[in-house]
Amino acid sequence: MTPTITAFENSPDRGRGLARDLRVRWALEEVGQPYDVRLLSFSAMKEPAHRAIHPFGQIPTYEEGDLALFDSGAIVLHIAQAQAGLLPADANARARAISWMLAAVSTMEPVIVQREVAILFEGNKSWHEERLPLVFDRIRGRLGELSMYLGDAEWLDGEFSAGDLLMVDVLRRLASSGLLGEYPNLAAYVARGEARPAFRRAFDAQYAIFLAGGVG
Amino acid sequence: MTPTITAFENSPDRGRGLARDLRVRWALEEVGQPYDVRLLSFSAMKEPAHRAIHPFGQIPTYEEGDLALFDSGAIVLHIAQAQAGLLPADANARARAISWMLAAVSTMEPVIVQREVAILFEGNKSWHEERLPLVFDRIRGRLGELSMYLGDAEWLDGEFSAGDLLMVDVLRRLASSGLLGEYPNLAAYVARGEARPAFRRAFDAQYAIFLAGGVG
Repeated sequence: MTPTITAFENSPDRGRGLARDLRVRWALEEVGQPYDVRLLSFSAMKEPAHRAIHPFGQIPTYEEGDLALFDSGAIVLHIAQAQAGLLPADANARARAISWMLAAVSTMEPVIVQREVAILFEGNKSWHEERLPLVFDRIRGRLGELSMYLGDAEWLDGEFSAGDLLMVDVLRRLASSGLLGEYPNLAAYVARGEARPAFRRAFDAQYAIFLAGGVG
Repeated sequence: MTPTITAFENSPDRGRGLARDLRVRWALEEVGQPYDVRLLSFSAMKEPAHRAIHPFGQIPTYEEGDLALFDSGAIVLHIAQAQAGLLPADANARARAISWMLAAVSTMEPVIVQREVAILFEGNKSWHEERLPLVFDRIRGRLGELSMYLGDAEWLDGEFSAGDLLMVDVLRRLASSGLLGEYPNLAAYVARGEARPAFRRAFDAQYAIFLAGGVG
């Protein structure tokens, strides 16, 4: 049965692929699973019909027969556990890859998102310029630790896994910040992820929606 | 084989059970799995020996034979998938419970942690008093959505699951904020979680470490 995911009808990032449907598309492309997309306006996302699937009124969601899931990390995990290609076969390696998935969305992404919160929602506040360096330094703290751990390795723990998929997608949010350039091994890690054919297909699919919407 | 988790030698919360070992202890108590604890000082957490297990130099970790895991959410998921009692048997209900686990640690906890960041790391800044209400309103946004979804239900999706365990533990971080009192169904939800015998055992175990350390 072909699953259906939801995505923004008009993505606020103008086709840069920073919305969280990208990671779900990428996972589906990695395992070779075709999927349908249902586009939602910002107002439709907040209506009861969508909140019944996603209590926080966001995208993406994942529907497959009787199953309806929310939370992009949980959806990627569901795909990775149901199909081969995104998690190692060895039980211990599999558990470690899932640790990296959780670390990506609950340790790394929250500090990275704070930069966006500061710029989008506090950019006009009197404290913005003085405070922003604190936010950047918190991100640097995490990036430094990740960079030290990754070292010269290609991926975080052996073969490419759903842990790398989520971590690369989370780090991509920093593209416009200049921060990744301070950690060359992380910049190269993100580039490796973005060079994967499955990533390209996922990126192109969301970009096509932006193009179809016209130059907004 | 008895697993070993790590915890703070001197928890900064003075026994209130807000460190992230609590959720792992609680999960282990729910499934009836005995465990050992290795206590770490703040400096030991940042040393290479611990970073080899936890790249971000934090607690808890989970070691069981050859397996070493980090990230509290991932550890609870590992326990919940390996043993009965924390996830439904039905595959769809199981996937939905995992969605709630991810939502707890990646949607709810990050906005809640920002209150602690503001107080601990920006409490002496000129903007602190003016900015804190923004942080509180972001938390209210998420709490309002969760409260609306939960309604009169006892747990988030049928029987108590690891999704409830993580959500209750995340909401507990707000105990001193007064915010939970604005959402009586959420306050009652947290109280139901804290009344579970497994929670009490987990709480008492971490409290005993605080007592043994003397009144610091």
